[in-house]
Amino acid sequence: MSDLSTLVLPHIQKLHAYTPGLQPAEPGWVKLNTNECPYPPSPRVATAIRAELAEDGELLRLYPNPKSTPLRQLVAKIHGLREENVLIGNGSDDVLNLLVRVFGGPSAATGFTLPSYSLYPVLVAINDGATTVIEFDRSMKLPVDKIAASGARAFFLTSPNAPTGVAFSNAELAAVLDKFSGVLVVDEAYAPFAKENAVPLLARYQNLVITRTLSKAHALAGLRVGYALASSTAIELLDRVRDSYNVNRLSQAGAYAALADTGYYDAIIGKIIYTRDYWVSDWSDRLGWFIYPSQTNFIFAEPKNARGETGPAVAKSLYDFLLTQKILVRAFPSNALTAPFLRISVGSDDEMFAVNTAINVWLKM
Amino acid sequence: MSDLSTLVLPHIQKLHAYTPGLQPAEPGWVKLNTNECPYPPSPRVATAIRAELAEDGELLRLYPNPKSTPLRQLVAKIHGLREENVLIGNGSDDVLNLLVRVFGGPSAATGFTLPSYSLYPVLVAINDGATTVIEFDRSMKLPVDKIAASGARAFFLTSPNAPTGVAFSNAELAAVLDKFSGVLVVDEAYAPFAKENAVPLLARYQNLVITRTLSKAHALAGLRVGYALASSTAIELLDRVRDSYNVNRLSQAGAYAALADTGYYDAIIGKIIYTRDYWVSDWSDRLGWFIYPSQTNFIFAEPKNARGETGPAVAKSLYDFLLTQKILVRAFPSNALTAPFLRISVGSDDEMFAVNTAINVWLKM
Repeated sequence: MSDLSTLVLPHIQKLHAYTPGLQPAEPGWVKLNTNECPYPPSPRVATAIRAELAEDGELLRLYPNPKSTPLRQLVAKIHGLREENVLIGNGSDDVLNLLVRVFGGPSAATGFTLPSYSLYPVLVAINDGATTVIEFDRSMKLPVDKIAASGARAFFLTSPNAPTGVAFSNAELAAVLDKFSGVLVVDEAYAPFAKENAVPLLARYQNLVITRTLSKAHALAGLRVGYALASSTAIELLDRVRDSYNVNRLSQAGAYAALADTGYYDAIIGKIIYTRDYWVSDWSDRLGWFIYPSQTNFIFAEPKNARGETGPAVAKSLYDFLLTQKILVRAFPSNALTAPFLRISVGSDDEMFAVNTAINVWLKM
Repeated sequence: MSDLSTLVLPHIQKLHAYTPGLQPAEPGWVKLNTNECPYPPSPRVATAIRAELAEDGELLRLYPNPKSTPLRQLVAKIHGLREENVLIGNGSDDVLNLLVRVFGGPSAATGFTLPSYSLYPVLVAINDGATTVIEFDRSMKLPVDKIAASGARAFFLTSPNAPTGVAFSNAELAAVLDKFSGVLVVDEAYAPFAKENAVPLLARYQNLVITRTLSKAHALAGLRVGYALASSTAIELLDRVRDSYNVNRLSQAGAYAALADTGYYDAIIGKIIYTRDYWVSDWSDRLGWFIYPSQTNFIFAEPKNARGETGPAVAKSLYDFLLTQKILVRAFPSNALTAPFLRISVGSDDEMFAVNTAINVWLKM
């Protein structure tokens, strides 16, 4: 018998796992830390899942459609693409993982910006991959030339960005794509809340891959469905690495119903954008906080205390106070650009009033 | 813009994807090709999923429990282990994939037998891993010394084996574990149909990992749930590589309900074993077919035609005839040991009578 530490691969031995946002098991929290949707999914989702369950769940004995074919077809139709341009994942994290495995390795660097979605470096590390990191400056403007010259085999760009909420225009993305010789992965987890998305660029760029999730705008974080849009060549490569039955029957049925109900989602997305813009204005104007222009379902704000101070200690002070009020938001203390900020998911009106009330109390402490 | 073929990793460029068993979309097939359960899951599964859906699926807006904690606790209790000895996967394929990623790479060979589950070499190839293959002979006896001396960092053993159905005793597994210096992964997808399983060996061997699925005995192939049982050290390593939200809310709820309903599953497993043994006897005695002793939910049989001939052409002749009768079974033509055989999943009585009738017609052709 051997010690497992001598058997595990060296890069796994030193790996630090991704830390997801806190998911409190007990009720009573105002949970604005993981950009979930404050509204329920379309009621047609539950109806479709009940239909797939039939009487006693008898269809569950059979494997799901291995390629999620009906869902691929619907996604293709929605985006004006063809079935071979779509891959369905067990959440968009599954798709991101496939992308890293296809394009990134020890001698094929994967690029990403700092700050951005903190899962990317973990996925690359799991694959023992080299990384190229491009840092934003405080302006959060897209460093087009640096990305183009990064030498990355695949570059992951969150657009609109997380955790800042800042969107990049198609003109900027095209400027990258015109110069960049690798695969540009545009992670559009928050695109339904943005003014523009990169889908029209797919017709021009074979090396563009777009990822989407149903976890945010579609209120289906609990169902685990995301997808990739790309050239048929890229999709075929991802399919080789994808697990044959990565998306179960109920998720396929529920996601289909959600994506088909555009009317419902147009309404809740509109409401979330309205709520977002209301509080961005209020906190900017009334409290004098710096907030990046958000095209997402969260607000990335730099809290200012009663003495007019900002900075990591001020952000931490508000974070800690909110925690005592059972309000969960997200802090990013490990990066100098993000440490003075808090990321607050856009919640329901009640939740946003609760946050606002707590902020007002904190300001008077 | 670059050609994607210059960007993809070389080992992915030459990869052949796993081919899952045919999943016909249209109804009317007798589907005995992927070892699904012929009976529906416990009715408590659908009840639990409906409860998780609540009125309008409102819980689906929230991420699932990232570690599937309640399910880990139940699995641990069932097997007399602790929560830290259990990991839940999006199907056992997810768990197998994690195991390959933790232990197998270009300079850390992964071992498996031929024949066995044909996903293993694909998972290793996706990870650009080296392989060590140990071939069975026609006896299908476990090559204990060869496995022990294989030099593999992790060795995957399907027990009971697929596609042969032959089980290996704990005495044989212990003989491997006593000598083998790597991690032995015992893939117990079919263990609920066997006389013995390897769980009692976990107390003695830190380098034993057992994988299970709910796709076969629990009639939940459509739900995608499997798990690993191992030392807490091994589970912690797998958790580092696991996607944070790999199992969705409905799958967690449904799997919990299934595993809690042991009475229901004892009954259907008993029925499947009875049906299996009936047809193994009938086809052996009446038709004179060679069939390996099965401890699974399938029958691996060497068809003999009316002229008393066996072999790959005979197996193919029966396979093709069954196809014309809309009966799907599985053939394994790529290996000399398996090519003369067909694997027939144990179906309902009606399905087995349909197969038997078709065989009788084929014998008179």
